[in-house]
Amino acid sequence: MSKDVKQAALDYHSLPSPGKIGIMLTKPAETQYDLSLAYSPGVAEPVREIAKDPINAYKYTSKGNLVAVISNGSAILGLGNLGPLASKPVMEGKALLFKRFADIDSIDIEVDAEDSEAFIDTVKRIAITFGGINLEDIKAPECFEIERVLKEQCPIPVFHDDQHGTAIVTAAGMLNALEIQGKNIETAKVVCLGAGSAAIACMRLLVSVGAKYENIYMIDRRGVIYPGRAGLNKYKEEFQNDTDARTLSDAIKDADVFVGLSGANLLSGDMLKSMAPKPIVFACSNPDPEIQPELALSVRDDVIMATGRSDYPNQVNNVLGFPFIFRGALDVRSTAINEEMKIAAVHALRELAKEPVPQVVMDACGVDELTFGPDYIIPKPVDRRLLGKVSAAVAQAAVDTGVAQLPYPAHYPLL
Amino acid sequence: MSKDVKQAALDYHSLPSPGKIGIMLTKPAETQYDLSLAYSPGVAEPVREIAKDPINAYKYTSKGNLVAVISNGSAILGLGNLGPLASKPVMEGKALLFKRFADIDSIDIEVDAEDSEAFIDTVKRIAITFGGINLEDIKAPECFEIERVLKEQCPIPVFHDDQHGTAIVTAAGMLNALEIQGKNIETAKVVCLGAGSAAIACMRLLVSVGAKYENIYMIDRRGVIYPGRAGLNKYKEEFQNDTDARTLSDAIKDADVFVGLSGANLLSGDMLKSMAPKPIVFACSNPDPEIQPELALSVRDDVIMATGRSDYPNQVNNVLGFPFIFRGALDVRSTAINEEMKIAAVHALRELAKEPVPQVVMDACGVDELTFGPDYIIPKPVDRRLLGKVSAAVAQAAVDTGVAQLPYPAHYPLL
Repeated sequence: MSKDVKQAALDYHSLPSPGKIGIMLTKPAETQYDLSLAYSPGVAEPVREIAKDPINAYKYTSKGNLVAVISNGSAILGLGNLGPLASKPVMEGKALLFKRFADIDSIDIEVDAEDSEAFIDTVKRIAITFGGINLEDIKAPECFEIERVLKEQCPIPVFHDDQHGTAIVTAAGMLNALEIQGKNIETAKVVCLGAGSAAIACMRLLVSVGAKYENIYMIDRRGVIYPGRAGLNKYKEEFQNDTDARTLSDAIKDADVFVGLSGANLLSGDMLKSMAPKPIVFACSNPDPEIQPELALSVRDDVIMATGRSDYPNQVNNVLGFPFIFRGALDVRSTAINEEMKIAAVHALRELAKEPVPQVVMDACGVDELTFGPDYIIPKPVDRRLLGKVSAAVAQAAVDTGVAQLPYPAHYPLL
Repeated sequence: MSKDVKQAALDYHSLPSPGKIGIMLTKPAETQYDLSLAYSPGVAEPVREIAKDPINAYKYTSKGNLVAVISNGSAILGLGNLGPLASKPVMEGKALLFKRFADIDSIDIEVDAEDSEAFIDTVKRIAITFGGINLEDIKAPECFEIERVLKEQCPIPVFHDDQHGTAIVTAAGMLNALEIQGKNIETAKVVCLGAGSAAIACMRLLVSVGAKYENIYMIDRRGVIYPGRAGLNKYKEEFQNDTDARTLSDAIKDADVFVGLSGANLLSGDMLKSMAPKPIVFACSNPDPEIQPELALSVRDDVIMATGRSDYPNQVNNVLGFPFIFRGALDVRSTAINEEMKIAAVHALRELAKEPVPQVVMDACGVDELTFGPDYIIPKPVDRRLLGKVSAAVAQAAVDTGVAQLPYPAHYPLL
């Protein structure tokens, strides 16, 4: 970021008042009569109704549209473990995105907990407040166990966006890129640089939609992950590959797909040259992609590139996923966000990218053309059709898999 | 409540959408540029600033104006222990009052914790999220220990409103009533019906402003509390009185003051007759006061009465206290709400009741006259001067007692 942008970001967060979210009243609260309904004595009635049947909390309180964005600050953006307080601007930012994109009321909760057990206990005890929980910026491998236990023990959707949000948007873009390049997910050789929560979730989801473990090469700081190597845990072992390749240079040869979730600018022009014909490069690290698009395109012109940045084509941006996924889940009062719902989101995103783009979306993006192809493999965040397409697909999948507590909403698009 | 009012309360809470509070954005979030400041990549800057110095959380996040309303639902209104979920409408109502009266952003957190230790651990771990914590509807005697530990361990104001809010408003009205009746707090005989958290806090605060323990008679379900009686705990023992009186009838004879926080209609006309000349009766139980004002005034005309109800004069209503107390505390970034700040609030409320009342306040209350006297001993909740008077007094007391981290605000009234 330039110095100007840094100062603009600080000003944005502090002026005219600190922060970027606040509380609003959704009901009149001016007169004595209003207050007698909102608080004493009227409030006793909804209390009694909820005591009779807990489901009434969805009728009389904000619970059903309220998502907590929860972090312990142990893996903030690319910045590392800076603790819960420093994570607050990110969590408030996520809450802002929930509201902005899907009208979901969302509040950040920073948890000052040393270990996974304390974190889990805390979240479990406050979960009753919310309709859903979005976990954020929790370091691997702890995040896997934290999410697993919370999913098991909370009767509401629990979703670690750094994992699944990234995975869903990546998978959607990847399947479209493979289609354009004329490749098949089942035979594609995939190199994944990075072995953190996002990387592991991305590869797991690619496997869910057809990729083969034996074709995946995952690389962490020590190099390619192979059986028996030092520094593994059970999550990395899931992607160990019985290969002679030891470095990124070794693994990248003849690869069809590169996925970078490493936080480092590590893919050289020579490495890109050694990839198979018509390669796909998702260089998702922010703000510096694993390889700059300018460099990549100067090395070869048959590559499809995506990055995490809004100033290049094909931005892999979580905001394409989590607001609409939660919207769909909340609207059918789903008890979970399961694998089928994630895959439904993948396909909804894929298909939306193939539809003609309204002029207003192109205008908002400042481009003259957006047509399905190498420079447009995933929808743009400003595309308001996302709400209808992705939420609907997710809601339908929740209904189909029996985790929805309400039928497919009458106000939703016909699928 | 009438059946109509009950239905109106349910409708209020469910239509057109469930609940009564939501999240709003306080910064622009429309364009790509807005979002690049609010979230990635701009948000990294405030994160770094807070990691450098935690105090920057007050500059770049919503923390400083955010108060959590936290309950485990173990003592909801007069309804008892209905659990955390059933308490949600009350907690959201409290959050609504914070916003409505003092523009404090407030969110409810319901904690599903079986015991005090689990509750304390949970609140302690999420406290970093907030600028202050308002505890609510937690049963006695656990609430005393919970508040004590949290005050000690959290560097932000922690305030159990059922105790201190009630106590502050009661004490303000009481001191004015004593003045009008020509009585002295130091010699007044006080009978307190009820020995829960509000009763104990009220009596403690009356002692803080001059009442004598030996003049206080506290009565629980078993009768007058005296040394060695069965069913005591250390909080009740603080108010044990070495007396021969055993019942309310015994104790009320020649009493100057009756404070009812019992949840029961228990003060008879005969008991009122037996009180000292010019008695003061605060029958605060809701919705049924310990004695109906009509009955009290038919028995004797030298009584000053207050109730918890808005349809009689002299409503003892917590909303006169907590929004403005927290406003003052937050505005000087106080690390606590201490005894001096509470007493400052008492005196600010007292004094405001003695000032001429603006016509708009009388209009809002639907009365022709509000003049300091038996029927007007405490300000009305609709009186917008409360914000200036009470918050200012509390902020000044915080500065004077060294718990403020900021100076008395420049935009506050000159004291």
